[in-house]
Amino acid sequence: MLIVMKPHATPSEVEAVAEKIRGLGYTPHAIPGAQRVAIGITGNKGALEVGLFTGMPGVADAIRVSQPFKLVSREVKEEDTVLDVGGATLGGRAVAVIAGPCSVESKEQLLEAARGVKALGATFLRGGAFKPRTSPYEFQGLGEQGLKLLALAREETGLKVVTEVMDPDDLAVCAEYADVLQIGARSMQNFPLLRRLGAVKRPVLLKRGPSATIKELLMAAEYILAHGNYQVALCERGIRTFETMTRNTLDLNAVPVLKSLTHLPVVVDPSHGIGLRQHVPAMARAGVAAGADGLIIEVHPHPEQALSDGHQSLALPEFAELMKQVRVIAGAVGRPLAG
Amino acid sequence: MLIVMKPHATPSEVEAVAEKIRGLGYTPHAIPGAQRVAIGITGNKGALEVGLFTGMPGVADAIRVSQPFKLVSREVKEEDTVLDVGGATLGGRAVAVIAGPCSVESKEQLLEAARGVKALGATFLRGGAFKPRTSPYEFQGLGEQGLKLLALAREETGLKVVTEVMDPDDLAVCAEYADVLQIGARSMQNFPLLRRLGAVKRPVLLKRGPSATIKELLMAAEYILAHGNYQVALCERGIRTFETMTRNTLDLNAVPVLKSLTHLPVVVDPSHGIGLRQHVPAMARAGVAAGADGLIIEVHPHPEQALSDGHQSLALPEFAELMKQVRVIAGAVGRPLAG
Amino acid sequence: MLIVMKPHATPSEVEAVAEKIRGLGYTPHAIPGAQRVAIGITGNKGALEVGLFTGMPGVADAIRVSQPFKLVSREVKEEDTVLDVGGATLGGRAVAVIAGPCSVESKEQLLEAARGVKALGATFLRGGAFKPRTSPYEFQGLGEQGLKLLALAREETGLKVVTEVMDPDDLAVCAEYADVLQIGARSMQNFPLLRRLGAVKRPVLLKRGPSATIKELLMAAEYILAHGNYQVALCERGIRTFETMTRNTLDLNAVPVLKSLTHLPVVVDPSHGIGLRQHVPAMARAGVAAGADGLIIEVHPHPEQALSDGHQSLALPEFAELMKQVRVIAGAVGRPLAG
Amino acid sequence: MLIVMKPHATPSEVEAVAEKIRGLGYTPHAIPGAQRVAIGITGNKGALEVGLFTGMPGVADAIRVSQPFKLVSREVKEEDTVLDVGGATLGGRAVAVIAGPCSVESKEQLLEAARGVKALGATFLRGGAFKPRTSPYEFQGLGEQGLKLLALAREETGLKVVTEVMDPDDLAVCAEYADVLQIGARSMQNFPLLRRLGAVKRPVLLKRGPSATIKELLMAAEYILAHGNYQVALCERGIRTFETMTRNTLDLNAVPVLKSLTHLPVVVDPSHGIGLRQHVPAMARAGVAAGADGLIIEVHPHPEQALSDGHQSLALPEFAELMKQVRVIAGAVGRPLAG
Repeated sequence: MLIVMKPHATPSEVEAVAEKIRGLGYTPHAIPGAQRVAIGITGNKGALEVGLFTGMPGVADAIRVSQPFKLVSREVKEEDTVLDVGGATLGGRAVAVIAGPCSVESKEQLLEAARGVKALGATFLRGGAFKPRTSPYEFQGLGEQGLKLLALAREETGLKVVTEVMDPDDLAVCAEYADVLQIGARSMQNFPLLRRLGAVKRPVLLKRGPSATIKELLMAAEYILAHGNYQVALCERGIRTFETMTRNTLDLNAVPVLKSLTHLPVVVDPSHGIGLRQHVPAMARAGVAAGADGLIIEVHPHPEQALSDGHQSLALPEFAELMKQVRVIAGAVGRPLAG
Repeated sequence: MLIVMKPHATPSEVEAVAEKIRGLGYTPHAIPGAQRVAIGITGNKGALEVGLFTGMPGVADAIRVSQPFKLVSREVKEEDTVLDVGGATLGGRAVAVIAGPCSVESKEQLLEAARGVKALGATFLRGGAFKPRTSPYEFQGLGEQGLKLLALAREETGLKVVTEVMDPDDLAVCAEYADVLQIGARSMQNFPLLRRLGAVKRPVLLKRGPSATIKELLMAAEYILAHGNYQVALCERGIRTFETMTRNTLDLNAVPVLKSLTHLPVVVDPSHGIGLRQHVPAMARAGVAAGADGLIIEVHPHPEQALSDGHQSLALPEFAELMKQVRVIAGAVGRPLAG
Repeated sequence: MLIVMKPHATPSEVEAVAEKIRGLGYTPHAIPGAQRVAIGITGNKGALEVGLFTGMPGVADAIRVSQPFKLVSREVKEEDTVLDVGGATLGGRAVAVIAGPCSVESKEQLLEAARGVKALGATFLRGGAFKPRTSPYEFQGLGEQGLKLLALAREETGLKVVTEVMDPDDLAVCAEYADVLQIGARSMQNFPLLRRLGAVKRPVLLKRGPSATIKELLMAAEYILAHGNYQVALCERGIRTFETMTRNTLDLNAVPVLKSLTHLPVVVDPSHGIGLRQHVPAMARAGVAAGADGLIIEVHPHPEQALSDGHQSLALPEFAELMKQVRVIAGAVGRPLAG
Repeated sequence: MLIVMKPHATPSEVEAVAEKIRGLGYTPHAIPGAQRVAIGITGNKGALEVGLFTGMPGVADAIRVSQPFKLVSREVKEEDTVLDVGGATLGGRAVAVIAGPCSVESKEQLLEAARGVKALGATFLRGGAFKPRTSPYEFQGLGEQGLKLLALAREETGLKVVTEVMDPDDLAVCAEYADVLQIGARSMQNFPLLRRLGAVKRPVLLKRGPSATIKELLMAAEYILAHGNYQVALCERGIRTFETMTRNTLDLNAVPVLKSLTHLPVVVDPSHGIGLRQHVPAMARAGVAAGADGLIIEVHPHPEQALSDGHQSLALPEFAELMKQVRVIAGAVGRPLAG
């Protein structure tokens, strides 16, 4: 159930509705919109009586929500959510590009990458300080030192920083240094972590798990919103199928499906999606053509020396070429690049 | 092994090479190119000695082919294959659009569809006369009567006809009426059918099976070429994964991978790929952005009355909108629409 | 809809019901049972009125069938179907073992295999004369010569012959030499072939396609029954998943699910299922423990010299050990081995 | 590289080898065996010179380990690992049965379940206090209160307690109350959690992720061993495939493959694997026949009232029947039931 308030409903009218919901034993979730406030209700098992709310002052409408995901649903909030990250946006008309190395390896490597992608039009810098690795014997990231280097790169270039957090214990330190917290594919259903993200004052980039359905991705985002953080973007990064020629199967079908079901921005990661350097640009173009609000691209000043993901990272000249192509495709679907 | 002849090698020089190959107990396959002839060798287990051929008159080079697929490989033929279908092309610079109903249902339905898609820029008409259906109790197609209606629609509109053949016994009658023979996803590894297609003088549109790897698709095409028919286009139409919100998972990753491995044209079928009418245009755009040489789209004058696939068929106004978008995206990647 | 006749209904009572069904524009399918005859109805879209039949002489009951598969359904025929193959049985209490080489390669190879598996308790001999191969350049089988060798092996050992048919044109010759016609995984949805099998007087062993759902397997079998051949056994032989350590993922879950949904016998193929010689016995044991009515096992007198599937074929001493284990497990679930 | 010490090597000889490894900049891992100590080496990129160690006092052999997983590998430790959980064993000859409700719901429910499964032969009690749920609006478990009820049930029945831990912050409290810590499928690659388990003095039951390969499962276990905890059992609980009739596809192929690659015990979870109450016994039988060292079964005194997983939980009479069948199958493969 969603209670839609009239455009000029007063705060006390909103509170009266919330109070009534609490009185029924359920939980109200006020959802901010550009024009008006809406209030989601969760905790009820069956359908609620619409008439309980429609007569209340300031209430425009009461709508039943048919999906198990509610706060993320377009039924509940029709307008696109636009993340405002200290001036840089993710979502809305402009297509944002997040670029940078898989792992932060050194000051030189990171700054070279950051300056390069900034000059070519990226508005966000990606870089891993805490790396999820299949083997305990592989490079696990520089940790806090990596975060400091990312902050340094932001200072120099103005790029906003996106970095992955895996461990709830690292949440505070990551939130201190980073602008956007990335939840990796393997953590998509790490529910204790998702809950804590609800309380953090940082936007979240939530990656789809390699075997997660679209519905499960939306439910994972619902965890974060239900715990209080409405600044979430979703990321398609490839699912696991039987095909072995590509690292994953980038599921671009998810882009229009997600855009129709949710108001959250949708980002595409062609680097992990196809996992083959020479084919990343084709999938980046396809992602934007399919309707993505952003791209996240692995770029390394010297891919052949990368400590991780070198085979799928672009060198700067390749990234330059990709940006040119993406700009044209974005234009063809009526969208500028952000920044 | 591939023997590349010099640009002006004479027929008798070509034949001498072929004869030598036969003398070694292997099979020569002459492969026509715009500039020069090449001769593939199959039947050998290990690598052949390059020196066996490099000294022969008219031979420019002898190249080892590393892949199990040979005749379809770009190693063997670098230039794109362009199918010439009575004047309409598939492959090459222009992006071709194949459109029409899932099944041929009646004269009125088919002509209305054909006139509509022709007016909007399609150059090929699709329509099923022999339908592969999961249930024996569902509509199985009009058979030869359907083929006659397709020929009638070609006569009236000039569109070239693409139709599926499932049964080897229908091959002759399908080849008589149709311009391009489609091999459906479930028949991709119907080897007896593939072999017979090698002897047919019609281009083939070979669809990827729902659980076929990219390599298996190439090997299936190899069957057709190895049996003598070099006029083959490949079609990505969605693979089977765990995702249930979409009918299949259209695997656009296959497009750039295929384009790099083979000289054959690559077509994308977003209708079966995503299986949701409202999302077909997004996937059509993405397919062209990823590098597809053509699209195959289900269009029905009255989707809600369709005997099959109505939920994924576009009405003509929707197809008009799709063509507009596809034209823009094709332009953005430097390609005109065919026709 | 299924019309169940009384135990002693006369042929003319049965015919009267069939005539009434035809009069309504539908198709009757008489289904033989040990105790009584039942008549399936297909061709109707909606539910039929039960009262149309319940008053007719000899009619015991009229039952609505809820599944899209009908003739194969336990709703329609509760008792297990037992295939009688010239005295050897498949289905029923005893667990049957089909064994032999992947491909018929030579008289010596086949007879050595046949004598060996016969001595160890198999009642059916498998062997491929027409081989479906991913590559056109691989060994495609001995064809009719292979069938003759199989017939020779039957003559000498008494084993019943199971062999694959791929091409409708080979159906007659295969049916002449073989006792059971195997439909391979890649042909499971070769509908023209399935239809023709309906008219053949040979039992069919229908293998599940690598990406076929359980429901699709049942619908494929329904094609054969609906076209008149009720002698069908199903075979689980592994599905395609993301796991690469095993050739396929033998889906033993399908065994109890199929046994609850259909009256047809269910056979398990651990050789193709797991594809690793040393693990075939474990999966054979598991298949019988899960409730399979039969096993089909690749056995080769000299696996290291096999022209196909050597890595998953057992040598005779390994097969001897497997038979010992299978006998014990069959006993543990209260079933003897056949023969 | 693995250094195998002689049966009577002294502690100082072992320490000298460890010291030499540290001196080379690598990490030694002493691995206890019944007969002798072995020392694994990790941290090296390339192969080490065998001669560095073979001449040292007390060293029997130095073996190169070919797999990326090392400490879990049978190459490194040939003998089966047997977990000793306060007298109850998991691994070794006897087949252990873990049974109990999906979630701890109340004292009455848990005690009824515990008494029931104890009387029928289970030696471990399962029950979730912290529940991973796809939706934030579903029952999330009783938390510490649930753990206390589990401890109470242990006190009364003597069953050892297995419970899931999701949140690193709950690790201490879970380790206080439980005997075995279960890592759920969605947490299999929660690397921060795996690392912490290395420092916990409790055995771990590590479940395979729904899209994890067998190799990734072994690598996840490797994390726990590499961080110091050698008491780990693996659990196959079904992978995600295209099949929708079953909840997951229980991959019994993994059982013999795992048993050949690792010395760790392998448990099968047919309840989550097939997800259909009536088919759990068939898959339990198949799991034991395939070589599993244990089973984990959901049992609820009143499945129709369960707050979670009621559709796949057995009632006590059904569990009684299952235990009877499992005992017979275990006997058929030469193994007693534990306890």
